[in-house]
Amino acid sequence: MSSPPAPLRRFASDNNASVHPRVVAALNDANSGHAVAYGDDPWTEAASQRFDELFGRPVETLMVWGGTGANVLALASLLSPAGAVVCTDASHINLDETGAPEFVLGAKLLDVPHADGKIVPEQVAEFGHFRGVVHHVQPSVLSITQSTEWGTLYTADEIASLADTAHSMGMKVHLDGARIANACAALGGTVETLRSFTVDAGVDVISFGGAKNGAMYGEAVVFLDPTLATSAPFVRKQITQLPSKMRYVSAQFLALFTDDLWIENARRANESCRVLYDALDGIPGIDRGPAPSVNSIFPSLDPGLREAVRDWSFFYDWELPQVRWMTAWDTEPNDIEQFVTGLRHFAASL
Amino acid sequence: MSSPPAPLRRFASDNNASVHPRVVAALNDANSGHAVAYGDDPWTEAASQRFDELFGRPVETLMVWGGTGANVLALASLLSPAGAVVCTDASHINLDETGAPEFVLGAKLLDVPHADGKIVPEQVAEFGHFRGVVHHVQPSVLSITQSTEWGTLYTADEIASLADTAHSMGMKVHLDGARIANACAALGGTVETLRSFTVDAGVDVISFGGAKNGAMYGEAVVFLDPTLATSAPFVRKQITQLPSKMRYVSAQFLALFTDDLWIENARRANESCRVLYDALDGIPGIDRGPAPSVNSIFPSLDPGLREAVRDWSFFYDWELPQVRWMTAWDTEPNDIEQFVTGLRHFAASL
Amino acid sequence: MSSPPAPLRRFASDNNASVHPRVVAALNDANSGHAVAYGDDPWTEAASQRFDELFGRPVETLMVWGGTGANVLALASLLSPAGAVVCTDASHINLDETGAPEFVLGAKLLDVPHADGKIVPEQVAEFGHFRGVVHHVQPSVLSITQSTEWGTLYTADEIASLADTAHSMGMKVHLDGARIANACAALGGTVETLRSFTVDAGVDVISFGGAKNGAMYGEAVVFLDPTLATSAPFVRKQITQLPSKMRYVSAQFLALFTDDLWIENARRANESCRVLYDALDGIPGIDRGPAPSVNSIFPSLDPGLREAVRDWSFFYDWELPQVRWMTAWDTEPNDIEQFVTGLRHFAASL
Amino acid sequence: MSSPPAPLRRFASDNNASVHPRVVAALNDANSGHAVAYGDDPWTEAASQRFDELFGRPVETLMVWGGTGANVLALASLLSPAGAVVCTDASHINLDETGAPEFVLGAKLLDVPHADGKIVPEQVAEFGHFRGVVHHVQPSVLSITQSTEWGTLYTADEIASLADTAHSMGMKVHLDGARIANACAALGGTVETLRSFTVDAGVDVISFGGAKNGAMYGEAVVFLDPTLATSAPFVRKQITQLPSKMRYVSAQFLALFTDDLWIENARRANESCRVLYDALDGIPGIDRGPAPSVNSIFPSLDPGLREAVRDWSFFYDWELPQVRWMTAWDTEPNDIEQFVTGLRHFAASL
Repeated sequence: MSSPPAPLRRFASDNNASVHPRVVAALNDANSGHAVAYGDDPWTEAASQRFDELFGRPVETLMVWGGTGANVLALASLLSPAGAVVCTDASHINLDETGAPEFVLGAKLLDVPHADGKIVPEQVAEFGHFRGVVHHVQPSVLSITQSTEWGTLYTADEIASLADTAHSMGMKVHLDGARIANACAALGGTVETLRSFTVDAGVDVISFGGAKNGAMYGEAVVFLDPTLATSAPFVRKQITQLPSKMRYVSAQFLALFTDDLWIENARRANESCRVLYDALDGIPGIDRGPAPSVNSIFPSLDPGLREAVRDWSFFYDWELPQVRWMTAWDTEPNDIEQFVTGLRHFAASL
Repeated sequence: MSSPPAPLRRFASDNNASVHPRVVAALNDANSGHAVAYGDDPWTEAASQRFDELFGRPVETLMVWGGTGANVLALASLLSPAGAVVCTDASHINLDETGAPEFVLGAKLLDVPHADGKIVPEQVAEFGHFRGVVHHVQPSVLSITQSTEWGTLYTADEIASLADTAHSMGMKVHLDGARIANACAALGGTVETLRSFTVDAGVDVISFGGAKNGAMYGEAVVFLDPTLATSAPFVRKQITQLPSKMRYVSAQFLALFTDDLWIENARRANESCRVLYDALDGIPGIDRGPAPSVNSIFPSLDPGLREAVRDWSFFYDWELPQVRWMTAWDTEPNDIEQFVTGLRHFAASL
Repeated sequence: MSSPPAPLRRFASDNNASVHPRVVAALNDANSGHAVAYGDDPWTEAASQRFDELFGRPVETLMVWGGTGANVLALASLLSPAGAVVCTDASHINLDETGAPEFVLGAKLLDVPHADGKIVPEQVAEFGHFRGVVHHVQPSVLSITQSTEWGTLYTADEIASLADTAHSMGMKVHLDGARIANACAALGGTVETLRSFTVDAGVDVISFGGAKNGAMYGEAVVFLDPTLATSAPFVRKQITQLPSKMRYVSAQFLALFTDDLWIENARRANESCRVLYDALDGIPGIDRGPAPSVNSIFPSLDPGLREAVRDWSFFYDWELPQVRWMTAWDTEPNDIEQFVTGLRHFAASL
Repeated sequence: MSSPPAPLRRFASDNNASVHPRVVAALNDANSGHAVAYGDDPWTEAASQRFDELFGRPVETLMVWGGTGANVLALASLLSPAGAVVCTDASHINLDETGAPEFVLGAKLLDVPHADGKIVPEQVAEFGHFRGVVHHVQPSVLSITQSTEWGTLYTADEIASLADTAHSMGMKVHLDGARIANACAALGGTVETLRSFTVDAGVDVISFGGAKNGAMYGEAVVFLDPTLATSAPFVRKQITQLPSKMRYVSAQFLALFTDDLWIENARRANESCRVLYDALDGIPGIDRGPAPSVNSIFPSLDPGLREAVRDWSFFYDWELPQVRWMTAWDTEPNDIEQFVTGLRHFAASL
């Protein structure tokens, strides 16, 4: 019995997705004549203005190459001397960046066990006894991820409560928003939604993702409190994250912000994930776990099934027996059908 | 008297240039379906193979975001403990990367005075007395730039001689090739040319530039000795230089290597510079300096003229009174005419 | 009712102790004429030889200023690129060195929950899935503490088992021996004892403590495998840990190794702790916890009692309600009597 | 013809000297009972007060292990993000600390050619064009050495002028005072002398040396502006420079400050150097160079003589053909006589 055709668009990561045609068009449009490198160009100026509008205040926005770079720049701007970052053990900065914050910044991460990808204020507060003790690192940043590495969401109130705790301890709040669009779409999808869990909740700096949301490359570090950005333009270059031909990064964000494409892309990814989740119902060998909040699910698979399916259409382990399946802005109904057909096929074969 | 129209394509930097249409086309072509992120995709495999062919041996090629990142990754791979990098004071790593090698890697740069952008073997050898002395950093990398920050070229023999000296001291050789295409075009323009001053001359690792040669973004770190790359894939992520959707970087290199576009782009830039240089002859207030070897000249301008021209068509100071004017792959004859017309205009006004 | 007299020698830390008279005498003896700085002196040569004899093989010994420095130098020598250190959450390197390994070396610590201060092989093995994955740090060092921060001991077999696991994963083994003398004394007190849980068990590098064992200052980093020490002399200076007038460090170790003073000092500290523990029996408001293995106990005190006693004779919290009381080489029976008298006094007052 | 006896106290370095008997006595006196570790002890409190008195204002004083550590802590406290240190190429931080500032702090040193070990304001000012340019490190500290690595002295006016220039550029001023006592003794030897070239001249932080001035070990980092020391206690631990049994460091400074022993020691060293210099007059094969300002001279020796003498009584090359000969607090007239007798002996033999 031969395998059914694998889906064209797989479920390994939204990083595997293509670039949205309107982003491609914007890149083509930007490709004319010369523009001063390193950010002194009209596209970057316009994109910065769009970020101001999005957050309803003058923010400071710095374009960077990628997500790890965005996080490192954000943390660099928030860390005090001998400072440390409180985060979950599942956070991207702790688990999936090959120790970049430690290596590049020399900063310790104080990771705590996550619950569904999230941290609670009590876990932040417990580092209060470190403060003022010279033998301990000084907690100076709380870093949270929205949506989280486990596909969950903080409510705006939860973030406000975390930020209150952090600020009361003299800490700053970083939000890793590699998938901030998915979070925003899931929580309401409006500008007010975005503000509710960021600027209104007390977040200080955001890593604002582009690449997982239909862009080719490029992320933005958004300083909601611009006074925190004083050194950031220098540090950006120093940590190797200053794009030379920056217009091409900025043009992508302009495209994403036109007619709310960023929200539309995220909403499509989120909805596709729900469709996928529903279609998994009743397939033997799969415990599909909780319903998705955004664009990822973490089903538990029988080992034989897991490897058979993976050979056919690649995906990543998460925390075995759980794996991660993820939809993207470009996931098509046909991809889901083909994937589920394959799942049923392999489940029946075992 | 009103100013003449400024050129559409300025002479500030080849970083200000646009992206070559064939590179844009390649990006469009790559934009279909899903591809595994982080390099396990067909474009990256093909690009790696093209680098092998270019150098006539199995090399190890790692795509990165930008030039500073390429240099930091290359140096990270070559530095021994307590190791230092010997380079010129004018080198990009020393002068124009905001101390990235020191900050990210903790490595000391031992910079020596350049002569026309170049270093000579005696300047490397003088650090021999550091070896084995615990109070001194241990010279472990020689980093040279080809073409140099002053628009000059090392001959293949000069590089071989430098590499011999370095290797005899237990050092490795890094070549910052942000403009390696311009160098290759100027020295012969063939694959043999490229090999003569790199692999045949004893260079160990190259930062192979794309962005200044008609690409949108992306550079390649090419380990001519693949055994030096053992840790590089990990370090690349750790220093924030692992592109997620890597196919889009690799597709650009594939386009540049198709029908020798990379050489053609460089040759056009180099030739335009010669045209510009010739057209400067006899303009009052300008000492045009030596003729260009590649795509940059460093004329000395009277201060009043300098600022008037800069206001009209931006460029950078280099080492005053010298400024840097640079052509790019997309410089058009009309740009040069307009620029020179402007120069004559402002020279006459002062 | 007035308080009883506080003990002359308190129970806060063996770091609060004085210097043993025979160490002082050795310092006086060494203080004559000139000696080449930085280690090329007869005392350092003799001390190195004594370490060779102690471990029954040619080891490489580097004197450093302090314990944190010793640990950082040891880890620096063992870490591979993108490497990380597996340790317990209670380890000194993780908790009490203000993030020195991260700051100075850029290395991530992968801390796991301790059980009585110890780690088990399974906790090391669980990082096996990090290996070869570019997004994760690469576990390259296992660091254990003997005796531990919770006053417990690994058996020689336990260390051998941990080292086997680590080595099978390509990792090296560091032993933080700030209190290695206390461990050795408790486990048998002979040269064979020392070797059984270090060189015979597969430990690669030791931070060999002096300051907590009757010295004034100074620790030794002992490379049981000398090939790992190739770069260490350079790195020692680079991390600010090269003592200039090194003879005075080495002379102290020579004194400690003469007539097994190091073991005698440790045995006295350990025995005093047992006396203290026994004397705590039945004092209201104190749960004295498990009997000591070495020179520390971790009793739980009622909060009121805790603060009253602390005001009278300072000590540190450990993990509340547990505090740490510690004896030293110079603890006298009278100190214990006075301390216990005070405890009974305050317990009766509350 | 056999060689004459070598001097008991050689001329290689003041680091080779012994410890002054009054310092030893102070160590003995401090060695009684327990004292809280890490600085909360009466000796450290008293020493801090003595530093306040010395500088005539409340300063912040932090004891550290050694000179490189003192410099690194001082620089860490003064560096701004992306900041760099301007210094001479001959400075200890640049040449003789194995790249510690770069490695530990990630900071770039902007070294300029020294003139007799000194830097002039114009050399500082030339980095003004780096300010505000994101591609360049930001000069944020000027580090000078007094007395210099070439045995010369800045006048108080020269330091004031350098500090004015630095401050006008937004920079802070660090003084590496590994031999500050020798400088103070040479320039007048009073408290007013010390203040004239430090606090009155605008110096912000001093590495205040002990080890070369009759101490066993230990240096002090003195923040003349205490507001700069906010993070220093944490950073001191983080860079491995927090002495545990700190009373023994502080007791040494107390001894040095009693009855101006620190000045007396320095004056004796300086005077011995003058005696040595005078005795060199007319020895064939030796160009003794300029007369000493403090305790070092840099004679040029014929190569054969140089090696013969070095084999007999060790010393260091400085910048060949110049070597460094140095006296110390404990240099005796007989040492000089024996050394000069030897010099004449070897000079006659060649």
